[in-house]
Amino acid sequence: MNSSTCSHAIRDLSALFDPGHIVVVGASADPSKWGNAVALQALRGADRHTITLVNRRGGEVLGQQVVASVGELDRPVDLAVITVPELGLEEAVDDVLAQGARAIVVITAGLGESGEEGRARQDALIRRVREAGAVLVGPNCLGIVDNHTATYLSSNTFRPGGVALLSQSGNLAIEVDRLFGERGLGISRFVSLGNQADVGLVELIEACAADEHTEAVAVYVEDVRDGRGFVRATAAAVEAGTPVVVLAAGASSAGARGARSHTGSLTSDAAVVAAGCRAAGAIQVRTPRELADVLMALRQHAQPRGPRVAVLTDGGGHGVIACDVLEGAGLQVPALGPATQATLAEVLWSQSSVTNPVDLAGAGEMDPQSYARAFAALQRADDVDAILVTGYFGGYSSGQDGLTGLGPAECAAAKQISVDAAGHKPVAVQSMFPESPACRILAEAGVPVFGAVEDAVAALAATAVDPRSASVLALPAPAAPVTAVDYTSSRAAIAAAGVPFVAAREIRSAAELHEAAQELRPPYVLKALGLLHKSDAGGVVVGLPDREALYLAYAQLSERLAPPAFSVEEMADLDGGVELIVGARWDVRFGPTVLVGLGGTATEVLGDVQVALAPVDAAEAERMLRRLRAAALFGEHRGRPALAISSAARAVAAVSRLAAAHPEVAELEINPLLLTPSGAVALDARIVTH
Amino acid sequence: MNSSTCSHAIRDLSALFDPGHIVVVGASADPSKWGNAVALQALRGADRHTITLVNRRGGEVLGQQVVASVGELDRPVDLAVITVPELGLEEAVDDVLAQGARAIVVITAGLGESGEEGRARQDALIRRVREAGAVLVGPNCLGIVDNHTATYLSSNTFRPGGVALLSQSGNLAIEVDRLFGERGLGISRFVSLGNQADVGLVELIEACAADEHTEAVAVYVEDVRDGRGFVRATAAAVEAGTPVVVLAAGASSAGARGARSHTGSLTSDAAVVAAGCRAAGAIQVRTPRELADVLMALRQHAQPRGPRVAVLTDGGGHGVIACDVLEGAGLQVPALGPATQATLAEVLWSQSSVTNPVDLAGAGEMDPQSYARAFAALQRADDVDAILVTGYFGGYSSGQDGLTGLGPAECAAAKQISVDAAGHKPVAVQSMFPESPACRILAEAGVPVFGAVEDAVAALAATAVDPRSASVLALPAPAAPVTAVDYTSSRAAIAAAGVPFVAAREIRSAAELHEAAQELRPPYVLKALGLLHKSDAGGVVVGLPDREALYLAYAQLSERLAPPAFSVEEMADLDGGVELIVGARWDVRFGPTVLVGLGGTATEVLGDVQVALAPVDAAEAERMLRRLRAAALFGEHRGRPALAISSAARAVAAVSRLAAAHPEVAELEINPLLLTPSGAVALDARIVTH
Repeated sequence: MNSSTCSHAIRDLSALFDPGHIVVVGASADPSKWGNAVALQALRGADRHTITLVNRRGGEVLGQQVVASVGELDRPVDLAVITVPELGLEEAVDDVLAQGARAIVVITAGLGESGEEGRARQDALIRRVREAGAVLVGPNCLGIVDNHTATYLSSNTFRPGGVALLSQSGNLAIEVDRLFGERGLGISRFVSLGNQADVGLVELIEACAADEHTEAVAVYVEDVRDGRGFVRATAAAVEAGTPVVVLAAGASSAGARGARSHTGSLTSDAAVVAAGCRAAGAIQVRTPRELADVLMALRQHAQPRGPRVAVLTDGGGHGVIACDVLEGAGLQVPALGPATQATLAEVLWSQSSVTNPVDLAGAGEMDPQSYARAFAALQRADDVDAILVTGYFGGYSSGQDGLTGLGPAECAAAKQISVDAAGHKPVAVQSMFPESPACRILAEAGVPVFGAVEDAVAALAATAVDPRSASVLALPAPAAPVTAVDYTSSRAAIAAAGVPFVAAREIRSAAELHEAAQELRPPYVLKALGLLHKSDAGGVVVGLPDREALYLAYAQLSERLAPPAFSVEEMADLDGGVELIVGARWDVRFGPTVLVGLGGTATEVLGDVQVALAPVDAAEAERMLRRLRAAALFGEHRGRPALAISSAARAVAAVSRLAAAHPEVAELEINPLLLTPSGAVALDARIVTH
Repeated sequence: MNSSTCSHAIRDLSALFDPGHIVVVGASADPSKWGNAVALQALRGADRHTITLVNRRGGEVLGQQVVASVGELDRPVDLAVITVPELGLEEAVDDVLAQGARAIVVITAGLGESGEEGRARQDALIRRVREAGAVLVGPNCLGIVDNHTATYLSSNTFRPGGVALLSQSGNLAIEVDRLFGERGLGISRFVSLGNQADVGLVELIEACAADEHTEAVAVYVEDVRDGRGFVRATAAAVEAGTPVVVLAAGASSAGARGARSHTGSLTSDAAVVAAGCRAAGAIQVRTPRELADVLMALRQHAQPRGPRVAVLTDGGGHGVIACDVLEGAGLQVPALGPATQATLAEVLWSQSSVTNPVDLAGAGEMDPQSYARAFAALQRADDVDAILVTGYFGGYSSGQDGLTGLGPAECAAAKQISVDAAGHKPVAVQSMFPESPACRILAEAGVPVFGAVEDAVAALAATAVDPRSASVLALPAPAAPVTAVDYTSSRAAIAAAGVPFVAAREIRSAAELHEAAQELRPPYVLKALGLLHKSDAGGVVVGLPDREALYLAYAQLSERLAPPAFSVEEMADLDGGVELIVGARWDVRFGPTVLVGLGGTATEVLGDVQVALAPVDAAEAERMLRRLRAAALFGEHRGRPALAISSAARAVAAVSRLAAAHPEVAELEINPLLLTPSGAVALDARIVTH
């Protein structure tokens, strides 16, 4: 975790977003230079701010007299933007700090992202900035913008609006601005994250959530840095009513390679980032278009209710395709209940299909109000969480369907739908005619309209179901570190945390073997210890029915592997049980995480694993278990009683608490944890420290 | 399978697509009627065809004198379009057949899709049409169009071009036409499939593949009807150079419900449709936009080479996102080899990253030709199968980046890229500025340009990898039907097909039990037969170490379940083996299919299954096995030797041959087939007949 961003104390970032006196250090007359583009933009805010351009060569830039040195200024600096060459950076920062700068934006690159020496220079610089009580964005960033305070300190302009955009990529921000423009969205604030050496994602989410002009926060990030801080700040923003939409890139192996070479970023495992977003209630997206589409859908201010979507169409093809895409996105299109079907049948005609998809089957062409009546019925239906209108709606008013004369009636239906949609269930409209007057009426009322059904479904998936599906527990204080991580010690540490194990004894001689055999009940398992992968090396013998077999196995393993010690264990009855894997990993950004999945050989190949930030309580652990595809095996199954899932959940919670209290544990694994109808018991364990 | 479309004899459809004399029966002066819209369209082709409008009321329609009865015509009819009310349909068809009609398009609805009686009327009608040597499209269709012969027999117009569109939905066709227009694509022929009572998808694919104006065939279908014919016709079209792109809807449970209520269609299991497409070499898409995007990408005429994609960008964010989306789509973004990296390093600058993603890192802004040089190097690289350009390219010429003056240089680079792209590797370009002059140069040269990276990746995925990943073997002649499907008979039938089983004996008395115990080696398995789910009922006891245990288990099962018979079997050593499921299912449209997956309890929950049309040979079966996620378990694993995958493949092929020769078998299952290093052996089996 990044020490620079661990502090919980909230710092004052007001000088970043509404400075009185802005100084552009490195302002240039050369249009190919950043110092020119930034100065040009900054001057657009000259009505609201005092803008001073600084260049050691003096002269004029963009028609304004340049100051040769910050030292000459007679008014204190609030915010300084620095675009000087890398070698002059420290001097420039010291100069503006001496003039009282409370906020600094460093566009200059070549420090933290360029290797060991650069990082040391950057660290020293940040220390001085913090000692002066100032904050710094960057270095290696593309500036910041606040459209509501006319603070334009980037080379690009952004359409004004209600979304704060925090981005680790400049081109991405330009693309997002364009996508927003096409959707009637705009930007309240833009911050280019750069190296996040001082001010990082966490403080910026906090500051933007507190901004009255910001309705939602959009994040593009390759390196979350302070993962726990991100979860805390995002959860607080979401709680307070500001949705946060996150495009976290670098999930793929090639993507992670690209992120490293691009910004020196470390990327967390995609499953861990997803766990962080779930815990925080952030909506995760994969691409810029999804980001923009989800933000458009969020303007409805609809509460997420659940996955049951009603599809409303006129003409079957679009309805069928929509069902396929919805189910593919993890949503449900259940057959509607009798009450809802009856209501729909009343307001439609006899040909209409009212099961779901709801297909007007020509009723729309008879009377476009059919759409509005069906829509209103679906809004009222208890068995519908969200509504997708798909297909031809918009066509009658589009001018492409001139013969019907139904345009005005369709527009009236659109008005009715807009009224019925407001503040209710999440809705998305896919239309073949998204630019039609009827669709414009919907869009202007805040109903999201899409040209492509997959976009509508992606937005609906993000807004229909509450993204927050995990609780976040605080990290406990570190416990006394685990030091011994041999098999028996690992086992003991995990058992002490509350995970039951099969009975076992570590032995180092035939005499001890004999004692152990008296004490334990057959059948036995014999494990040769001190080997890297005891199973792979053939160092585990199971199913030894009696002492005779145990002693022979001991003799054979001793001769073949000569291990320093053995573990003799009682053998659990695997029959009718399910083998789980329960583990913990230390993530470079999010710290302790816990995972549970189908164990045994299946783990590696089937990837049926759930990950959460540790610690989790037993209730959350049980939700993780129930999200596994393998959860289908936990209930009554082929005549076997239901498995003791709450026992497994307690074991998962125990492992998560252990990992959370032991930052020195890099990896911890119980594989398998045998889950039977009567309980859960660990059959093997290991711990790896950093 | 549909008997009406099983015939291999190729019928002459020329009267459908280039008729000399067209008769519109049911032509109407009322603009709200189909008979008006179709007549209006038909008359647009009056220069090329003789168009006769028929309405029993006579008079004038659209300024043309109407004939009251087909019987009055003095010239033979080539093609008749019929839009009369449903009750008059048979008479209208008989009338035009009497006038020599060789092709009939029936828009009238209410027959085959409306229940038992309608289907009987439809069948009778089709018999008369066939006896007359004519062909019929529909009923319940929206007409046909051939833009190259000015045959306009639908209520809609379609932009002319090279794609034949065969659609089971009318609105879908209108949407596709709009999407095509945005991409510079157009339609050669449109056929609304309707009920496919006579002419179906198969004959239409054949006819369109043979059409000189058709470059590609696009299919929207909910019910493939003759699945094997579809595979045959599609494979032939693809082989002859006409790609076929298929949007088969109804894959989801709700989608299937929608399709049923919409057209009475039966939909095959999605995995079977996918298997059919793979066998045929059809490209499958999920949505109308994907359909249009893939067809745009196919205009490159690039040969699919494989999954290794090089990502070319300037500015890291877009490269990282592209990598994530590519890997998410099943493509690869491998680090480039030393030779390719060296070539790239030569033509770029030192900051550029040349591993993959290839990030110009500002070189594009220095000199847009950097893009072209890097692109040319990637075109020549042996370790790259396809290229994705993503991000800012297009920006310099877009007018959004006025300061640089790089627009002309960027356009020059675009020209160079167009030249280097032609006829080589599959390429896709995603640009933030898809409408820019540079991107228009690319698009006009046939390089597909996309605004959104997920669209570019979907198109690349469809064109970079050969969609034909399975061979199609002919169906064998049916063998003598399986009659007995009790456990022992099923087992015997499958064993006779060439699948090895563990040794077993069916017994019905303690005396037979005793004999079996002498003959077979312990440990034993005892199965109570004649129960529906013997495992679920607790009717299977495994791991019986000796006769004593076997006899006790026999006594207990006899008392508890009183089964009519038992099977005593030798118990296979499961240790180190992997349990597979091998099965066959009869699909309502595609006939026999074979499946293989990870067996045991995992099958139901993990869905790690591969499906193919049966029969398959052992080589194809081995490819199916290797496509399983569980294939990771087949090689050397934790010190255990590799499994005998070829033995499993032979068993899969044997099952597939058995299923293919036995149309009476609805379902056949070996679960598990135990795969060990020394071979594959079936431990259980069942057969269900129709």
